[in-house]
Amino acid sequence: MAHLLSTSYSVKLSSGCKPLIQNSIVFPKFVSFQTSKTPFTSQRSQSSCTVRATTLSANREAPNEPSQGIHQTSSEPSKSKRVMVIGGDGYCGWATALHLSKKGYEVAIVDSLVRRLFDHQLGIDSLTPISSIHDRLRCWKALTGKSIELYIGDICDFEFLTDAFKSFEPEAVVHFGEQRSAPYSMIDRSRAVFTQNNNVIGTLNVLFAIKEFGEQCHLVKLGTMGEYGTPNIDIEEGYITITHNGRTDTLPYPKQASSFYHLSKVHDSNNIAFTCKAWGIRATDLNQGVVYGVRTDETEMHEELINRLDYDGVFGTALNRFCVQAAVDHPLTVYGKGGQTRGYLDIRDTVQCVEIAIANPAQAGEFRVFNQFTEQFSVNELAALVTKAGKKLGIDVQTTSVPNPRVEAEEHYYNAKHTKLIELGLKPHLLSDSLLDSLLNFALKYKDRVDRKQIMPSVSWRKIGAKPKTVTA
Amino acid sequence: MAHLLSTSYSVKLSSGCKPLIQNSIVFPKFVSFQTSKTPFTSQRSQSSCTVRATTLSANREAPNEPSQGIHQTSSEPSKSKRVMVIGGDGYCGWATALHLSKKGYEVAIVDSLVRRLFDHQLGIDSLTPISSIHDRLRCWKALTGKSIELYIGDICDFEFLTDAFKSFEPEAVVHFGEQRSAPYSMIDRSRAVFTQNNNVIGTLNVLFAIKEFGEQCHLVKLGTMGEYGTPNIDIEEGYITITHNGRTDTLPYPKQASSFYHLSKVHDSNNIAFTCKAWGIRATDLNQGVVYGVRTDETEMHEELINRLDYDGVFGTALNRFCVQAAVDHPLTVYGKGGQTRGYLDIRDTVQCVEIAIANPAQAGEFRVFNQFTEQFSVNELAALVTKAGKKLGIDVQTTSVPNPRVEAEEHYYNAKHTKLIELGLKPHLLSDSLLDSLLNFALKYKDRVDRKQIMPSVSWRKIGAKPKTVTA
Repeated sequence: MAHLLSTSYSVKLSSGCKPLIQNSIVFPKFVSFQTSKTPFTSQRSQSSCTVRATTLSANREAPNEPSQGIHQTSSEPSKSKRVMVIGGDGYCGWATALHLSKKGYEVAIVDSLVRRLFDHQLGIDSLTPISSIHDRLRCWKALTGKSIELYIGDICDFEFLTDAFKSFEPEAVVHFGEQRSAPYSMIDRSRAVFTQNNNVIGTLNVLFAIKEFGEQCHLVKLGTMGEYGTPNIDIEEGYITITHNGRTDTLPYPKQASSFYHLSKVHDSNNIAFTCKAWGIRATDLNQGVVYGVRTDETEMHEELINRLDYDGVFGTALNRFCVQAAVDHPLTVYGKGGQTRGYLDIRDTVQCVEIAIANPAQAGEFRVFNQFTEQFSVNELAALVTKAGKKLGIDVQTTSVPNPRVEAEEHYYNAKHTKLIELGLKPHLLSDSLLDSLLNFALKYKDRVDRKQIMPSVSWRKIGAKPKTVTA
Repeated sequence: MAHLLSTSYSVKLSSGCKPLIQNSIVFPKFVSFQTSKTPFTSQRSQSSCTVRATTLSANREAPNEPSQGIHQTSSEPSKSKRVMVIGGDGYCGWATALHLSKKGYEVAIVDSLVRRLFDHQLGIDSLTPISSIHDRLRCWKALTGKSIELYIGDICDFEFLTDAFKSFEPEAVVHFGEQRSAPYSMIDRSRAVFTQNNNVIGTLNVLFAIKEFGEQCHLVKLGTMGEYGTPNIDIEEGYITITHNGRTDTLPYPKQASSFYHLSKVHDSNNIAFTCKAWGIRATDLNQGVVYGVRTDETEMHEELINRLDYDGVFGTALNRFCVQAAVDHPLTVYGKGGQTRGYLDIRDTVQCVEIAIANPAQAGEFRVFNQFTEQFSVNELAALVTKAGKKLGIDVQTTSVPNPRVEAEEHYYNAKHTKLIELGLKPHLLSDSLLDSLLNFALKYKDRVDRKQIMPSVSWRKIGAKPKTVTA
């Protein structure tokens, strides 16, 4: 990959980068990085660069800290060791990249960093002060001695993705690298188009890269429970057996997504299923519920490793947003009647689930679907839990119903299966009083960073228009 | 729309443009056209132009020849009169545009003409010598006195589409304007990406245009029976009622598309269904079977109106291709075992079905799905029918099995419902000996134009790669 590397420089670690948690690994004072620009000839005019820590040579041997408690059937291919995390600078991606690195996997992050650009453009920010991806990785290496390779670029640029694949040679790809906000996709036409183009074409490129450069590579793709919508029957994991007019078949579970974002994930699922059948791709679609929490074992090792926490009306999700609202004495904003029920999970279970999926790969040609959540709650139930937790901390939490900006059922049946990950060894962190205390205290710690103007929903499913929408100062 | 028009010129009708069929309408000797370029600021750098016949002023009154035999329930909104046919220069689109114009609808064709570019790039051509869209429309006006407006541009360019919508103010949009070949979408990565981007984003733009500029406008969208795949249960029209664990719901019929093209139509269906629910769009998804035939009442009025007939391995479809193969003494190429069963229809029924859909619009917020075909055949059955028809004409038709370039079941259950269009008045033209005679004779008439090199399948579902594939001379 010499052609990729055009310049090199040394970076001194900030003196503040000391472990918060006792860590036995000696870390070097200096870490050398190399950066480069790859030429681009794709449809998009975006630059890309590869940043690789080189002081410690990459260890391509077996993981030195294999996971505990995750079984693997003997008929499976050998456990993947080299994992590419696309979208590894984001909320779930960052936590996952560190978790896998800690567990002994060799990790590369691929990210265009466009999520950070969205914050600038919308005038919003994470509750927590997050470091640059470069500082994050320097800190991680300093703390643990582990290198995480970094490829900065857009996976919609196939030439960039090709270079990253050929350079890193992943055995598993975890794909978080999509525009992941339903409200963002409903801001205006150009964001709707961006979301579907970015997500669908990015995933197509990943599928082609696997076919071309690593046919045995296992794709672990983040889907969403929102793909299913809220049918009046039990939600199964990806497939449903239907008997109709005396005949029976097992078919893909019907999807009823309710935003251009959720639809993009349905499109992805359909595309991936086809390539599993036609090309023998091995893929796991993780239909994830709503993630809450911010701390994972790895991100809490140092302030420079802190994860992002979104509370705004575009990227903030129900429980996280409620905790921040409670912390700043803002009423909890329940959309409509509040009977909307969804699957939820702790971010510590997100990283655990992804590891389980990697450790137990899909078979060649298999399109496997796991529903990745641990508990169901209605919005009203979450509001009640936060109110109760607030009371213990002496906060008088109010709740207000705001007109629902979305088009969705506000009272409905909901019963979604989620046993496959449990069967593979998932030990859930259930939502508890102590977790809520901790989340609330976390929000209180950073409450001075809250911009109250960002809390209310600003995007309407019905009022979206063709005219580009900008944020006023 | 004055800002759209920058130049004007007059075009003399070619003296050869005389009606083949007796036609009582006086036609003018000169037709004045105006062309223009619209500025473009979209993601794509493509020019667009609007060409409008202006000698005869557009008649925006009620159709003067309402269709016969198509009922309309009294609760429906008034019948659409102004119909925009996107993709109106293509095989189904051209036949439909003329049919609707003849029936008294005011018609505008929106087309980027990119289908003609594909022919150049792949080194293929229609069996029939088709005229330019400009000559086609001049001839139509000369023969019938009816103007069809023409907007040349790419619907992925939202500014162009906006201009077309604001200028024409359609009451119904028939959307044929997609890359419509499964093999084309499987040539290489860039064609796969083009197909999904072009089809999905184009349709998103149409949905936004309807929401912004004509909320009552009825979208008649061409889907495909291929969206369903070949499930082992009966295929219903769009939805299926499922009883599961003691509960019942009617859900979207599960889809199992088997090419990037077919998948793009699934994506469209999902996107449209969402906008019907969220925005109240009225839409009809026509899941069309394989179309055969070339003559319609209108296209056979003059040689300049002749429709395209594709027989090549990329755009040619089963029955049309077999007739051309028989005409040039090429063995009929059955892919694999030939048990692949699909729904088929005569192109005269395509135009009839679209008219029925327009005359009986969906309700506001309704996402209606019709399975648009009239008969089911296996590939082997079609080969036998063509062999028999050839014998009557003294042609000794041979059949050969070639390795299946696709990934599909070659022996399977297939039973698809198709009653909704019949209930609305469709009178099918069933595949008959006389139709096969006529198609075979048609193929014989143009057999000297056949390029035998184009007949065999050249695209493999399994061998598609990331490298751009070009056609050797």
